[in-house]
Amino acid sequence: MAELVKVAVDAMGGDNAPVEIVKGAVEAVNESSHVKVFLVGGEEVVNTELAKYTYNKEQIEVVNASEVIATAEPPVMAIRKKKDSSLVKALYLVKDGTCDAYVSAGSTGATLVGGQLIVGRIRGVERPPLAPLIPTEKGCALLIDCGANVDARSSHLVQFAKMGSVYMEHVMGIKNPKVALVNIGAEEDKGNALVKETYPLLKNCPDINFVGNIEARDIPAGNADVIVCEAFVGNVILKMYEGVGGTLIKKVKAGMMTSLRSKIGAFLVKPALKETLKAFDLEQYGGAPMLGLNGLVVKTHGSSKAVEIKNSILQCITFTEQSINEKIKEKITMEES
Amino acid sequence: MAELVKVAVDAMGGDNAPVEIVKGAVEAVNESSHVKVFLVGGEEVVNTELAKYTYNKEQIEVVNASEVIATAEPPVMAIRKKKDSSLVKALYLVKDGTCDAYVSAGSTGATLVGGQLIVGRIRGVERPPLAPLIPTEKGCALLIDCGANVDARSSHLVQFAKMGSVYMEHVMGIKNPKVALVNIGAEEDKGNALVKETYPLLKNCPDINFVGNIEARDIPAGNADVIVCEAFVGNVILKMYEGVGGTLIKKVKAGMMTSLRSKIGAFLVKPALKETLKAFDLEQYGGAPMLGLNGLVVKTHGSSKAVEIKNSILQCITFTEQSINEKIKEKITMEES
Repeated sequence: MAELVKVAVDAMGGDNAPVEIVKGAVEAVNESSHVKVFLVGGEEVVNTELAKYTYNKEQIEVVNASEVIATAEPPVMAIRKKKDSSLVKALYLVKDGTCDAYVSAGSTGATLVGGQLIVGRIRGVERPPLAPLIPTEKGCALLIDCGANVDARSSHLVQFAKMGSVYMEHVMGIKNPKVALVNIGAEEDKGNALVKETYPLLKNCPDINFVGNIEARDIPAGNADVIVCEAFVGNVILKMYEGVGGTLIKKVKAGMMTSLRSKIGAFLVKPALKETLKAFDLEQYGGAPMLGLNGLVVKTHGSSKAVEIKNSILQCITFTEQSINEKIKEKITMEES
Repeated sequence: MAELVKVAVDAMGGDNAPVEIVKGAVEAVNESSHVKVFLVGGEEVVNTELAKYTYNKEQIEVVNASEVIATAEPPVMAIRKKKDSSLVKALYLVKDGTCDAYVSAGSTGATLVGGQLIVGRIRGVERPPLAPLIPTEKGCALLIDCGANVDARSSHLVQFAKMGSVYMEHVMGIKNPKVALVNIGAEEDKGNALVKETYPLLKNCPDINFVGNIEARDIPAGNADVIVCEAFVGNVILKMYEGVGGTLIKKVKAGMMTSLRSKIGAFLVKPALKETLKAFDLEQYGGAPMLGLNGLVVKTHGSSKAVEIKNSILQCITFTEQSINEKIKEKITMEES
């Protein structure tokens, strides 16, 4: 039997912790025999939750942590002070090699800071980006970076392109993934100082499939697989997905309730519509990996339910079994030589 | 009788020129006796189009222009070389005081460059922003800046906030409009160097109603009336509206066609849905004003039909009658003192 992939899960992070987190962990080990989950959190509450389920006891281990980091806490301070928090202890399990990966629905800031400070960067990686999958008409694309790395430099963006390509090719199975740079026009000479400097660097990168600039309008259409941008812009793109999507769905629902005729129609279209829109739901893709660290750090939505926790844990198996970090190391080193 | 508001319209600009542009001009003068339109373009083709309609001949004048600037042409070069183009001649009508305002569905780049080079900035205005109205759940908001001013400084953003406030209060009739700064978090200390520097400046601005940071997610919900950002981010926001909106509507339509049951439902909900979604259509609001110039420059969508041209022309009446530029001058000067 192959060695199990070991995942440290922050049992106390997120709006639905620990109930949904524990449930998701149980579902993950029941779905795959390749994984062992370390549930980090208040021993008593976690065990109470675990007692509700049937699962292979060898695949789940509880690690006690007496503190919890709240979403509103300043990240650096929280990481430094709360040494016995579930978030910090789970990250240390990756740092010391007990686990291969970490999953949390808790504080994004603390996860990003902790990922860098505790788990640490792969040698050569300048900045580890947070890279969520976003839905497109053709499937999904990797938006890299959405993290805390604002005011990025062009060399960072080149590394994002390389790391994103590795992820899309080996985790998502897209051969020779198309890499595009977010810009305000398609032409090479468009844009601000950062993208003007980055464009020729990406164009001359031999080991990625750079297809040029992409306007934000064409991202949801699925014209590229790896969407490269600095974190401020990435954050705006991700949140416009949520904002426009949410408002439009609300409008569609309200529109269907305006007359008796439309109400009957709504009743008839509802099941089909639900199915189609599910494919365009940001939350279906599980967590966003923070790439370029000595281990895998996955941040899932604060509102995650069991299914997202399960998917995030299962995603760690492919990542580890495909030796993504080894491949990232190779690509980054190639750049240096 | 009050003096007429005079609007120079680029009859040759946009995908549907000159047919829809001329039609829109006729519709505008037939709707309002307060406006005179100067249609700038090929005399012959414009007159042929005009011959199709009945309207008050004193309200439309044709100004011949033998050249046309294409969307793909490099803006600065086009403005310099094509002195007899409809776009350049129409801008000169504003420059020399013949007209109060300019409307074009033609090249955005050439309009932005021409607005600055030909019409010129109001004394004190550092950069004239392009500020489209975007739909929200509560009505609409002004997104300022979406123009060509990438790599903006904090002093520019403060001026955008002031000019946007004047526009929303006096053109859109929103009392004490709420001004928000686009950021990646709600807290004051979040963001990149530009927004961190801009936040305290806006906070200490006595003559605007600054409500703090806004995350992109909350823009479509209508949490603020004036959305301040630099042009790169503004462009991404505007185009994510188009991209996510377009893809979602496509998904909704496809979802409704998946079964016989849903097809019948679709037939029933269609009229109600169409009505509701119209209120969320970017194009309904007419053109985007370029603020801070010695005259009003309005850029409408390249795909504009007659109705948008008409709305853009009528928008110029309110702008001129409300002396928006005088009010902008006052607010900008106040800053300097």
